[in-house]
Amino acid sequence: MSLLVVGSVAFDDLETPFGSREHALGGSATYFSLSASRFHPVRIVAVVGEDFGPDQMRVFEGRPIDLAGLSKVKGLSFRWKGAYGYDLNEAQTLATDLNVFADFKPVLPGSYRECEYLFLGNIDPVLQLDVVRQMAKRPKWIALDTMNYWIRGARPALDAVLKEVDILLVNDAEVRELTQEYSLIKAYKKVRALGPSTLVVKRGEYGVALFTPEGIFAAPAYPLENVFDPTGAGDTFAGGFLGYLAWIERADVTALKHATLVGSVMASFTVEQFSTERLEQISQDEVRNRLALFSDMIRVEDL
Amino acid sequence: MSLLVVGSVAFDDLETPFGSREHALGGSATYFSLSASRFHPVRIVAVVGEDFGPDQMRVFEGRPIDLAGLSKVKGLSFRWKGAYGYDLNEAQTLATDLNVFADFKPVLPGSYRECEYLFLGNIDPVLQLDVVRQMAKRPKWIALDTMNYWIRGARPALDAVLKEVDILLVNDAEVRELTQEYSLIKAYKKVRALGPSTLVVKRGEYGVALFTPEGIFAAPAYPLENVFDPTGAGDTFAGGFLGYLAWIERADVTALKHATLVGSVMASFTVEQFSTERLEQISQDEVRNRLALFSDMIRVEDL
Repeated sequence: MSLLVVGSVAFDDLETPFGSREHALGGSATYFSLSASRFHPVRIVAVVGEDFGPDQMRVFEGRPIDLAGLSKVKGLSFRWKGAYGYDLNEAQTLATDLNVFADFKPVLPGSYRECEYLFLGNIDPVLQLDVVRQMAKRPKWIALDTMNYWIRGARPALDAVLKEVDILLVNDAEVRELTQEYSLIKAYKKVRALGPSTLVVKRGEYGVALFTPEGIFAAPAYPLENVFDPTGAGDTFAGGFLGYLAWIERADVTALKHATLVGSVMASFTVEQFSTERLEQISQDEVRNRLALFSDMIRVEDL
Repeated sequence: MSLLVVGSVAFDDLETPFGSREHALGGSATYFSLSASRFHPVRIVAVVGEDFGPDQMRVFEGRPIDLAGLSKVKGLSFRWKGAYGYDLNEAQTLATDLNVFADFKPVLPGSYRECEYLFLGNIDPVLQLDVVRQMAKRPKWIALDTMNYWIRGARPALDAVLKEVDILLVNDAEVRELTQEYSLIKAYKKVRALGPSTLVVKRGEYGVALFTPEGIFAAPAYPLENVFDPTGAGDTFAGGFLGYLAWIERADVTALKHATLVGSVMASFTVEQFSTERLEQISQDEVRNRLALFSDMIRVEDL
């Protein structure tokens, strides 16, 4: 059994009111795999350039992360430059250098085509669909992230891949643009008609709303004393959420609720430091303790 | 025993993407008392003008709302004109006509001075403090709402009244401006140093975060299919929250958590229609049913 992620492995230049980093490790598949691999083995399909060296590779070592699908090609790695103001909910993109990512055509190694769980990170929906078609058998579930750029600019391809998807993970603005509905309840109905039966709406510091055919669940974000850099929080959430589901081999409502808490706790570590700095360091005890604190925090006796 | 509210009783002109209303009933004391009086008798101190007639008075009739402190004076009532875009979280103020409110000096009828619970709605902190000083004995608890206008422009008076306050109810932006801290955890520490031991942060469609000396609690907003007009949601929340506390005569952590759910449910009714239209109409059964649904929605089995 394995959890396959296709996405970006990249370098980020980050600016927040609390400091900055240049050439820091980033990318959706990076955050996702560092988070998910705490719960379940992960296989990565991505592309990097020649500037991706031993220092970066070391971050993935000693973890159940299979890099057979990480191809290294001539050129520079994908690089993103972003800045945040005091409202850390919204990133301002200063530069996007696709570099080797511009010609990325994900090719799944033979061993990957049997993966039981698939996460399609936020890339061109044409490529997302291509990955689905390379699978030897239909995964138990397929999850997908996307963004307004694709919703606006690649809608036919996005609609095609969404038909294959079980779990859609996006933020408020994205699901509203996708469905042209402000109400998330109405938006969820339209999402179901597009394909996914489960909708996870990521709301940054405001937490996560989960929509399933059995009902709605919402959890706040784990409250933090210090938030340094929200980059990667969404992919870290997805990693914890989907890694947990793969680990317990269930995706019923209780499992989805618990996965929401796990994903939120994993994301809370990511934002406490720049880039993957904190995510690389946390111990299993820290994860367990924070999960316990978080569960206590949202618990209410029956009214 | 009684719950005293000092605030505004006003007319609102409202514009949202879903429609508009002119000369609709509004004001903090209006929303607060309609909401709180479902749980506990309320006494209002406010001022209206000659344009406030039987149609408006009728809304308060048949409820345990004491209007002995509602003075009617020469001139026009306070009038607010506001508009909302699709992001209903932020109101744009188009006009504020203080009218009779400009000379408002709250005077508590004798019978009011023994009230056990006091809510100081969002008015000049000089007046809020004056009300506290008119009380014959110290209420069991005092709660206060304020806004950035007073935080910026009347800080010494606000600091003076905050020393008397137990429960501060504000939104994210307000508590961040008050404390100059982005992190709500750090902000709460500063709030405690200012006086209040409990902080309630209202976050619109994202729900409420509750900070007490015993810990943090957060609840999402009750999810709605249709939101028409967010005006008054915060004061309706405060009414449900404080009315419930007055009713159960407790303010321990469990009571505060339950009060958060009650306040959220009451606010969810207000935003489903313009002005007080929905709040006036709801039955006790509707309140009970929605509370049960909401409790279910946020419940998670132990992980």
